[in-house]
Amino acid sequence: MNFEGTYVAMVTPFTEDLKIDEEGFRSNINYLIDNGVSGLVGAGTTGESATMDHDEHRRVIEILVDEVDGRVQTVAGTGSNATSEALDLTQFACDAGADAALVITPYYNKPQQHALVKHFETISDNVDIPIIAYNVPSRTGINIDVDTVVELAKLDNVEAIKEASGSVDKVSDIYRALSLEGLEDEFNILSGEDSLTLPIMAVGGTGVISASANIDVKRMVLMVDSILNDDYERALELHYEMLDFIRACFVESNPVPVKTGMNLMGLPSGPLRQPLAPLKEESLEILKKALKDSNFI
Amino acid sequence: MNFEGTYVAMVTPFTEDLKIDEEGFRSNINYLIDNGVSGLVGAGTTGESATMDHDEHRRVIEILVDEVDGRVQTVAGTGSNATSEALDLTQFACDAGADAALVITPYYNKPQQHALVKHFETISDNVDIPIIAYNVPSRTGINIDVDTVVELAKLDNVEAIKEASGSVDKVSDIYRALSLEGLEDEFNILSGEDSLTLPIMAVGGTGVISASANIDVKRMVLMVDSILNDDYERALELHYEMLDFIRACFVESNPVPVKTGMNLMGLPSGPLRQPLAPLKEESLEILKKALKDSNFI
Amino acid sequence: MNFEGTYVAMVTPFTEDLKIDEEGFRSNINYLIDNGVSGLVGAGTTGESATMDHDEHRRVIEILVDEVDGRVQTVAGTGSNATSEALDLTQFACDAGADAALVITPYYNKPQQHALVKHFETISDNVDIPIIAYNVPSRTGINIDVDTVVELAKLDNVEAIKEASGSVDKVSDIYRALSLEGLEDEFNILSGEDSLTLPIMAVGGTGVISASANIDVKRMVLMVDSILNDDYERALELHYEMLDFIRACFVESNPVPVKTGMNLMGLPSGPLRQPLAPLKEESLEILKKALKDSNFI
Amino acid sequence: MNFEGTYVAMVTPFTEDLKIDEEGFRSNINYLIDNGVSGLVGAGTTGESATMDHDEHRRVIEILVDEVDGRVQTVAGTGSNATSEALDLTQFACDAGADAALVITPYYNKPQQHALVKHFETISDNVDIPIIAYNVPSRTGINIDVDTVVELAKLDNVEAIKEASGSVDKVSDIYRALSLEGLEDEFNILSGEDSLTLPIMAVGGTGVISASANIDVKRMVLMVDSILNDDYERALELHYEMLDFIRACFVESNPVPVKTGMNLMGLPSGPLRQPLAPLKEESLEILKKALKDSNFI
Repeated sequence: MNFEGTYVAMVTPFTEDLKIDEEGFRSNINYLIDNGVSGLVGAGTTGESATMDHDEHRRVIEILVDEVDGRVQTVAGTGSNATSEALDLTQFACDAGADAALVITPYYNKPQQHALVKHFETISDNVDIPIIAYNVPSRTGINIDVDTVVELAKLDNVEAIKEASGSVDKVSDIYRALSLEGLEDEFNILSGEDSLTLPIMAVGGTGVISASANIDVKRMVLMVDSILNDDYERALELHYEMLDFIRACFVESNPVPVKTGMNLMGLPSGPLRQPLAPLKEESLEILKKALKDSNFI
Repeated sequence: MNFEGTYVAMVTPFTEDLKIDEEGFRSNINYLIDNGVSGLVGAGTTGESATMDHDEHRRVIEILVDEVDGRVQTVAGTGSNATSEALDLTQFACDAGADAALVITPYYNKPQQHALVKHFETISDNVDIPIIAYNVPSRTGINIDVDTVVELAKLDNVEAIKEASGSVDKVSDIYRALSLEGLEDEFNILSGEDSLTLPIMAVGGTGVISASANIDVKRMVLMVDSILNDDYERALELHYEMLDFIRACFVESNPVPVKTGMNLMGLPSGPLRQPLAPLKEESLEILKKALKDSNFI
Repeated sequence: MNFEGTYVAMVTPFTEDLKIDEEGFRSNINYLIDNGVSGLVGAGTTGESATMDHDEHRRVIEILVDEVDGRVQTVAGTGSNATSEALDLTQFACDAGADAALVITPYYNKPQQHALVKHFETISDNVDIPIIAYNVPSRTGINIDVDTVVELAKLDNVEAIKEASGSVDKVSDIYRALSLEGLEDEFNILSGEDSLTLPIMAVGGTGVISASANIDVKRMVLMVDSILNDDYERALELHYEMLDFIRACFVESNPVPVKTGMNLMGLPSGPLRQPLAPLKEESLEILKKALKDSNFI
Repeated sequence: MNFEGTYVAMVTPFTEDLKIDEEGFRSNINYLIDNGVSGLVGAGTTGESATMDHDEHRRVIEILVDEVDGRVQTVAGTGSNATSEALDLTQFACDAGADAALVITPYYNKPQQHALVKHFETISDNVDIPIIAYNVPSRTGINIDVDTVVELAKLDNVEAIKEASGSVDKVSDIYRALSLEGLEDEFNILSGEDSLTLPIMAVGGTGVISASANIDVKRMVLMVDSILNDDYERALELHYEMLDFIRACFVESNPVPVKTGMNLMGLPSGPLRQPLAPLKEESLEILKKALKDSNFI
């Protein structure tokens, strides 16, 4: 499966009593599809997977598949720091009809590099669904080495990486290592950081899995499409039009600012689950200014 | 409750089919008590909490309390990156009769500093058991700020911190900030890194929660007791007698080397659960050499 | 003055008795001009400025200006960690007829951000030559903040920055901050890291000051020109054709590999001055392989 | 030569027209000797060596030796990032009668580890004076590896290291590696960070080279002597009595706060040379508060 374009790491809207707001989630799905995304990610980090129980986690995937109904790619967040749990969730996503699974590396228990290969191999060997590996060292405490990425790329079902290490140099090294194995066309690199989407795509990335695009979907789609059409001049303009807003979306831990912004705009979002807490006053002011400057409020 | 001396972050021994080896766990408990520990931690990071389901997690706590039977302090690992889950586990630990709970900061979802205070407050307000907060940024992606530690210290039930940020300077800043509030005697700082136990205690720490002491318990108890008795000369000797072995215990991610070493020594330990994988050959050689040099095998 | 295209941070060739090899230096200048560079930097970091005395430093600048003779831009490395010395050297460069001066931030004594502004102001106010500020935290121990870059851009003679912090995100932030002041067209951002040239130019950089281009000048010029002509497809090809070679050029501290490679190719280069030492054997093998793979030897 | 106790990295007082204030320097020397220091360092980092010319640098060393007149150890800062210059300065210090030389690793040009050994070897082989190697990665961009320290310790004249990497763990590894070669008693480890003096001495360090002791010499001497007398209880008290003041001494880059504080107290100090600039207002307030709290003003 080819992963190209703008994917949105969707927030999970909650009702005031912290239940999943199914209607709101469906509404957001349609809003994002209407604005041209290539795919939607449910139950990922931005979707507060950490604080959903298994039933909720599965329910979010089911709603995603149901509401999208084939219009764009559906990607289910199914990672865990227990291999058995990640496998269970990925199998569920496959059975539920998701197009792909986003599998973050185990966090907190710090598997070794050779253990990472085994972890993804165990999942890959037991599912029939494309897998996007997700590398985000600032959250997980581990970094997938370049050589390890190549090992993952050779597994049957691991077909892309969401790279959020912050290093464009590492993306270059991954792409180069893949090309030495002739894998650079069949294994996609997606930006996992909104502000690095342009430079990462300039060195061979094929798209982004974006959190800020829960709100700023139009411009992100435009920018990514400009790059895919080799119009880097227009892409640069859009990159800088978005930048202040992107920075505001990460003024505190994601998805706190994005959910807060959606609430301010009237998009379904609702409260955060603990341990995440509302923005500090000064962060809220920064967010509001950015929303206003981009005419979102 | 006062936390002072040597605590062991116990491994969870598994049988060959990866079930909890209850008999082995009880045997390890007695071995460690016989060697003079102040307390035992079950179901923590070293105990592979990440790959235990809730029933297993609770069972480990029950066995710990039952087998220790009041001889030393029992500390239950009860942290989670979902506040509700951490609260549930801590309440369970309280009901099960544990003396204290070790609550790691949420990992991976990166709550803000003010959210950390709320997280621990929610737990503290709803349990009746002393809590040791656990700070280990290399695993969790967040660092408890010095000011935040002071806020935690003011909560009813948070009574200590296990500090594993790697910075002795930070321990000094914490102790100093606590003392400005008159809290330095009632709130304990425990080293979360074996090799920093001596310097951390030199600036006011009262003990260690140790992984390497699953094996090297005698020397760790001796060293910590030497420090508590102000015999820094003897402590320095023991610090350096242990150091190569401690380094070998972390040649790959904990608890992989420690469990491997226990197996080599004939102590109950057994295999690791995925995603953790066995040591690479070169790491195994380093571990074996260290075990031999210290006469463990 | 506009800084655009490929600039080479030239090595200073030495004779066997460690004198400046003037003839060799002139030969290298002509070789690089013949291959299409926009400008040449003499007496910079790659030119081992740290181990040249003042007379030698000045002599290198004189030769550069003389030999180039207006064919391309001449840039004199004139930075120091003493403001007075940096000023003296920059004035000398101006008098000698250099087109611009490359002024690294003070290293080792770590001036504060407001002190950096004063440092560059003192130089800017007392010379009549365009200045390129050079930011390379891994060498200097300090990072020019985004806000500070904007302050520098407002000074009369500071007209560009060579950015070598490794962060493309920071380049975006600089460009964005400059554009808020309407300065993005008159103040250039040059890549200070060869492997980041493509992504940095994708977000608004106008060229590179390259060390590896002492050798691989043809491909670097081609790539940079491709980007300037908006041919990102061709640029990506060249980026990856060069990448292994670039990595080999930094297998040990620059300029050790580059000078070693030039010696292997028969280009004037000669020995290094202490404290730099020849490559380790394993590094030499990596370099040789990269040179062969690119048909340089 | 044995290095033990409190050494002060002395500021160089300047007159209002930025000449060396010889009288003030002599006055400071006597003040520090009267307060019990083991030795005094002139023309080091804190002494603004970066902005002294060679004549001034030599003059400071001469005054130091002359005024001390054998009462305590004299240590001349003689490092450079050019080996030849470091050698010249060290030979001068030897000829001038200094007891030892403090030789920082080369900064900014980043010699490799094997080059570091050669650098110190070149100096060691050509002087007849004990050398203290100085490791401060945050300023120099390089870190002396543990194995390299052992190589340095085997050189004839390198007899100590001033460790300012911030890692107490590294100090342990150095001490352990030295002890495996039987060198731990003849090669001293001195703390290069005031706030880590206690923990570093707890793992085998023998003293400190302190910047804050330009002002707070009494307490630093008391603390270090307490440790040397194995009175860790008293040392801990003094550590925390000093801590806020130490933090204030590094609120901006050293020696800016220390020189500013000395001026406020009426000790000879004077202005800073560029590129260092006066404290920002908010930093000045922090410093003043710390000075008042410790009754220095």
